[in-house]
Amino acid sequence: MKLATLRDGSRDGQLLVVRRDGEAGAPAPAAWPTLQRALDDWAAAEPALRAISDGIDRGTIETTAIDPHRLSAPLPRAYEWIDGSAFLNHVILVRKARGAQPPATLETDPLIYQGGSGDMMGPRDPIELHDPAWGLDYESEVCVVLGDVPVGTLAADAHRHIRLVMLANDCTLRNLIPDELAKGFGFFQSKPATAFSPFAVTPDELGDAWRGGRLHMRVRSTYNGGVLGDCDAGPEMHFSFFELVQHLARTRRFTAGTILGSGTVSNADRARGVSCLAERRMIETIEQGKPSTPFMVVGDRIQIDAVDPAAPGSSVFGMIDQRVVAAGATS
Amino acid sequence: MKLATLRDGSRDGQLLVVRRDGEAGAPAPAAWPTLQRALDDWAAAEPALRAISDGIDRGTIETTAIDPHRLSAPLPRAYEWIDGSAFLNHVILVRKARGAQPPATLETDPLIYQGGSGDMMGPRDPIELHDPAWGLDYESEVCVVLGDVPVGTLAADAHRHIRLVMLANDCTLRNLIPDELAKGFGFFQSKPATAFSPFAVTPDELGDAWRGGRLHMRVRSTYNGGVLGDCDAGPEMHFSFFELVQHLARTRRFTAGTILGSGTVSNADRARGVSCLAERRMIETIEQGKPSTPFMVVGDRIQIDAVDPAAPGSSVFGMIDQRVVAAGATS
Repeated sequence: MKLATLRDGSRDGQLLVVRRDGEAGAPAPAAWPTLQRALDDWAAAEPALRAISDGIDRGTIETTAIDPHRLSAPLPRAYEWIDGSAFLNHVILVRKARGAQPPATLETDPLIYQGGSGDMMGPRDPIELHDPAWGLDYESEVCVVLGDVPVGTLAADAHRHIRLVMLANDCTLRNLIPDELAKGFGFFQSKPATAFSPFAVTPDELGDAWRGGRLHMRVRSTYNGGVLGDCDAGPEMHFSFFELVQHLARTRRFTAGTILGSGTVSNADRARGVSCLAERRMIETIEQGKPSTPFMVVGDRIQIDAVDPAAPGSSVFGMIDQRVVAAGATS
Repeated sequence: MKLATLRDGSRDGQLLVVRRDGEAGAPAPAAWPTLQRALDDWAAAEPALRAISDGIDRGTIETTAIDPHRLSAPLPRAYEWIDGSAFLNHVILVRKARGAQPPATLETDPLIYQGGSGDMMGPRDPIELHDPAWGLDYESEVCVVLGDVPVGTLAADAHRHIRLVMLANDCTLRNLIPDELAKGFGFFQSKPATAFSPFAVTPDELGDAWRGGRLHMRVRSTYNGGVLGDCDAGPEMHFSFFELVQHLARTRRFTAGTILGSGTVSNADRARGVSCLAERRMIETIEQGKPSTPFMVVGDRIQIDAVDPAAPGSSVFGMIDQRVVAAGATS
């Protein structure tokens, strides 16, 4: 099942059930007008939404065409957005880039940060650049939407709490990071609003590509028309989503609609490219002594998509496709 | 105007308008059944809620008694919970306690962290202690609930976006902090769910005690029946809530219902006591060579209240009154 949220002037939008090809959809039943309401009441909402999805497949339910420009993030505002950094190749490269060591517990203790969740960007929303000196970067990620997660949940039970899978562009202001992390309290100003893929899909929709708490697909990052990265999101995700859930739930519980990210998808094989500019700049520094790729400027375009190896050409989550615009250009 | 949320089995509870003495209240109009819904639509909701408040004052609206045990946090789940650390005396003492230096920009660049906001505790909710070795501590704080805050909001305009004021107990697991902060991404497991005062009040309800973006009242922390702290929340809040809002909004906007905390209320005058055990332990270390106050154990009780100097004996926010219980005791 594939879900999306249509902008309708309300804060949470209108929940849509989307046809498998992503081109058309039908509204959710009135009892679950928004994705958050459906997640709040998933045991009842899921079968009702699946009935609509089945009706769309059989052609018994009328659909209307979906314009991705009218979609918001599947959850336009969420109760939590927690982002891991589970691809160790990314951690090592990015810390090298800012002259920092990876933590001693890199392979045993997941890195995560609590992100801002009140204002999420849709898949076609422009990214406002307020100051080019802040060093705007994209980060292509996989994420999951959780149901209610009790405190103390173990990795072995975490699959029960994963409702949906989607992609994210975790925009980052690289040049604000060193001063912010030096203060010791983690990211804040260096993480502006995150964007999400048009569609959030149930794990079963991914077939064999969803296994072991990982998405076994390539995540492709196309920057100004050139493919900068086509990275496998599966095997090198050192901590699976299941392990990340266990880490989260050690000291508190989580409410339905919490979003959990993988961190930037990253492969050790350089032929796969990169899922953010910081990694590319670090590789340039290693190979050529200094970075030659600048951070993002007004007019740049970033497209993020996932490709199922079993169905080339398919776009299960739809594409994140954002342009960088000057501050104030969208207001 | 004074607001509270009654537990009614739903995720967001029932919004109540509370009588000035905090002893009774009446339900909000059906158009705004929850505090979040009222904040979403504040321009329309505020006058309607004030009309009820006025009717309660005049005795023309029927009220029912309020049992604080039946109240949840004013926002049982919120879209963001951002906590500052604006009392520099606290920053200096607590960092000293863990052998860390205060950041070089202590007086010019506010310290804030993004907290978990999906699961907030009510004023009487027990605190489950899963492992005494984690070093459970309370932190008595003042916080504000924001309306929609545009990106780039300046301190001079921030007063327009402050809807409500309340108190918080930002529970902290002290012994998990050093390893977590060493990883560089800020707090996560070391910050379990935060508890809030029974009542959230509009700034005008505070009269002269709310000025310059600070609450000029004493916040009293009573631990196992003894007053451990009676600290002034006003003058020593180095960064006002207005300045904190400017800091937040530098690179992104915030949605209505975002909660912003002051950090632990702390005074340089030791006669005022402390608003968390970590400070007391540090003072003991300075004075006696080692801490003698242990962290919290099962059976402990923490009460947090604010006292208006103009109205001794009043309890404008109601009291946070929590007991520490063994893990699983509440389920």
